Amino acid sequence: MPTFKLTIAYDGTGLVGWQRQASGISIQGLLEDALRELDGRHVEVAGAGRTDAGVHALGQVASVSLTRAIDRGTLVRALNSRLPESVRVVDATDAAPSFHARFDARSKTYCYRILNGEVMSPFERAYAWHVPGSALDVAAMASAARLLEGRHDFAAFQASGSDTSTTEREVFSSRARYGSDPLRGAGDPQPFDGMAPGLITYEIAGAGFLRHMVRTIVGTLVEVGRGRRPVAWVSEVLRSRDRAEAGPTAPAEGLFLVSLDYRDGVTLPAGDRELGHRVSG
Amino acid sequence: MPTFKLTIAYDGTGLVGWQRQASGISIQGLLEDALRELDGRHVEVAGAGRTDAGVHALGQVASVSLTRAIDRGTLVRALNSRLPESVRVVDATDAAPSFHARFDARSKTYCYRILNGEVMSPFERAYAWHVPGSALDVAAMASAARLLEGRHDFAAFQASGSDTSTTEREVFSSRARYGSDPLRGAGDPQPFDGMAPGLITYEIAGAGFLRHMVRTIVGTLVEVGRGRRPVAWVSEVLRSRDRAEAGPTAPAEGLFLVSLDYRDGVTLPAGDRELGHRVSG
Repeated sequence: MPTFKLTIAYDGTGLVGWQRQASGISIQGLLEDALRELDGRHVEVAGAGRTDAGVHALGQVASVSLTRAIDRGTLVRALNSRLPESVRVVDATDAAPSFHARFDARSKTYCYRILNGEVMSPFERAYAWHVPGSALDVAAMASAARLLEGRHDFAAFQASGSDTSTTEREVFSSRARYGSDPLRGAGDPQPFDGMAPGLITYEIAGAGFLRHMVRTIVGTLVEVGRGRRPVAWVSEVLRSRDRAEAGPTAPAEGLFLVSLDYRDGVTLPAGDRELGHRVSG
Repeated sequence: MPTFKLTIAYDGTGLVGWQRQASGISIQGLLEDALRELDGRHVEVAGAGRTDAGVHALGQVASVSLTRAIDRGTLVRALNSRLPESVRVVDATDAAPSFHARFDARSKTYCYRILNGEVMSPFERAYAWHVPGSALDVAAMASAARLLEGRHDFAAFQASGSDTSTTEREVFSSRARYGSDPLRGAGDPQPFDGMAPGLITYEIAGAGFLRHMVRTIVGTLVEVGRGRRPVAWVSEVLRSRDRAEAGPTAPAEGLFLVSLDYRDGVTLPAGDRELGHRVSG
């Protein structure tokens, strides 16, 4: 049973999210359908993060075990030829039989993209939250973002109605800034100059996340950026453990699952590395 | 009759192109429909460049004359509220009554985006030509591109079946290189390293262009980049004046009308400049 670690990029527009559902097209469902054709049986695809409807991924990771022998390059090509262009397997590496994309993940990194300016770019409408009006105070958003780092009870930032055994999570880093775009490549920071809208990114890395946690944090940070609330308000929201105290849930289209980090040793030595199985933003 | 110079960005995916047609949705048609609502009569929208179906624009320019008085900021907002999100008026400036976006244009700049690498990014599929396989020789493409600068007969690079009084055109600059992305912002050059696909851009500025000229030039340059033809072949194609000698027409989705340059004095002094009527790539 060869086991693979797949790295997957997808444009979540119009999809119901990672997880297979009774109706609608899911990324997990598309991959399982493609793998059934290849392996002649149902292959379970375990994804590292269950992204919601409309959320995108640059580096989602999934683990799969096949019965048939296949090399990594052939697997990437065979899957991509069976997937829609909105979903691409960008890399496949050999993994230990015990590898599980979700349970073995040490850290997940998400990025949220905000476009601040009067007129929204037609090329960003599916990939960023348009916040019109005056310039957001990004320095205040950055300060507020840092208050969320560390181990906290994030109950205030969880979708209402969720039932989770614990709402405590550890956030390794939480940063808001101009530029630093994971989707479009490096580029210089673009401060809002009153004419050109600026791209603001929020990046968060943590061991795990509650449902809608990143989007609720972003909605809360934007309240601070608009000057409606002071920086310290974010700590009050955190302490309240009450969803009603936080800001609105930012829309799905701005959110990207950027990457996953794993412990050393869960993947097998690379052997002969093949070319070109990565995708650029 | 106040006259305006409109700057327009659009995602050309699924549209029939700039020019109003008997069927299908055109950018000109969308603007004329929106202006009819505002001005209570048919308003002719003269565009600087007639982009083809599927071609995008970051800075298309159009001239319009209205009967009703309206300030620039209100005009931008009123048009955008009537247009689909794929088409945005990013700026409106007061222009002299004689201003004509097409006849007064001194120079047009187009950019063509190529993504070279094994796996296409889901986020680039509508905005670049995917050229898989081994790395294109960008240095050779850059040398070949420079051979097209100056005044030449570009008949070999015109869509077959076109009837134009003259096929002579002046190209001010013709450059192929890594990076330099007008869509996604600056960013460092991304040389193809065998793992990450590189973005290659072709930028051309000229007084005027023949039908499919930019896309045929790109298709020809990619033949050079693939090593199928030497750099000097481009000069031979030019001299042949025969469309059959050139490379294939590159697909529409990689092409962007970037900007237009006008003579000084065709637009009125700016007066009080308003904020935020520009869109970023």
